[in-house]
Amino acid sequence: MPRLKLTYFDMPGRAEVTRLAFAIGGIAFDDHRLPRDQWPALKPTTPFLQIPILDVDGVVYSQSHAIERYAGTLSGLYPTTDALAALLVDEIVDFNEEILTLLIPARLEADPAAKRELTNALAAKPLPDKLALLEARLAATSAAKKSHGDGPWLLDAMSLADLAIHGIVDRLTSGWLPDMSPAIVDPYPRTMSIYHAVRMHPKVVAWYASKK
Amino acid sequence: MPRLKLTYFDMPGRAEVTRLAFAIGGIAFDDHRLPRDQWPALKPTTPFLQIPILDVDGVVYSQSHAIERYAGTLSGLYPTTDALAALLVDEIVDFNEEILTLLIPARLEADPAAKRELTNALAAKPLPDKLALLEARLAATSAAKKSHGDGPWLLDAMSLADLAIHGIVDRLTSGWLPDMSPAIVDPYPRTMSIYHAVRMHPKVVAWYASKK
Repeated sequence: MPRLKLTYFDMPGRAEVTRLAFAIGGIAFDDHRLPRDQWPALKPTTPFLQIPILDVDGVVYSQSHAIERYAGTLSGLYPTTDALAALLVDEIVDFNEEILTLLIPARLEADPAAKRELTNALAAKPLPDKLALLEARLAATSAAKKSHGDGPWLLDAMSLADLAIHGIVDRLTSGWLPDMSPAIVDPYPRTMSIYHAVRMHPKVVAWYASKK
Repeated sequence: MPRLKLTYFDMPGRAEVTRLAFAIGGIAFDDHRLPRDQWPALKPTTPFLQIPILDVDGVVYSQSHAIERYAGTLSGLYPTTDALAALLVDEIVDFNEEILTLLIPARLEADPAAKRELTNALAAKPLPDKLALLEARLAATSAAKKSHGDGPWLLDAMSLADLAIHGIVDRLTSGWLPDMSPAIVDPYPRTMSIYHAVRMHPKVVAWYASKK
């Protein structure tokens, strides 16, 4: 295995799918949590002036979803021999980015009253609309599963898509937007079953326990 | 090969990388150009209320970059057996999306004076900054090529990343933003060498000739 160092701030954000993929795959990596005050010095050295970055045997790579897919490949969570399964996974990863893009203005707003207003506007319609699309997509793709099994996963086994869905729910229920009611995710049982299944995965439980 | 139908508007936009990948790979597909007035009826039937969609043997998939990656896999333009090469390609595909996100407000602005102002603001700094990052990234990754060859490609052979770069340059030089000077891409020789190499590829030349 290559020598891996993931650099990101000490928060889930754009690094958590990669961290969980490595943890689930049992892939050793240096989980470097960058102190905020060190970011200005690091920034100009990064490929696109952004983190996360992943150092692989001394070579630096960038772009969170690109890094996620690499971590998923190393960890057996990304289908590399089934192009249609990969397409289903990629679709969810891209949709996760769409939801994140929708949320970012509220996240970045510093004024508490304006932040609350932006959050409430999201919760009123655009966000439930997106979550309903995701829920419907999970129902539709479930029919295409080879196993036709009872597992919660998008595919027959856990994949990067499930980690992305876990990330969406976590972002909405963890106080990342302080005014977002965690109940916003309640109407989406397939989405939530994936979230819970990721959260209760033994490797994920062990990972979070080790970080406390 | 599966039966493939790609549905998008009659413009390059978010479908062109996929179209060119199929054309280069010699993969037959139905290049369905949706008339604008048919979009309202189709929209509610699409997975995420968006096009492009790709119908594969009667099953519909969505998200442009997910579809691109699938097309690239079928066409031999996406590395499925070299995880680090895939990471390099994915990085550029994701960066292409960043540049597109930067340009969209100017593209969507209907008022000509406001559109010109937005375009000029992009051209003054944010866009050259992004293009310079891309150019530097191409220089840096070129050193990692196994062939250390003279080819313009990001990797040893043409890949989805090169088609994404072609798309960036095409968007900036084709009048997609009417007030953008095509000269904006001139300072970036590596980027332009990839653009020209894609454009002059025999399969691409034949593809565009067949569409006239």
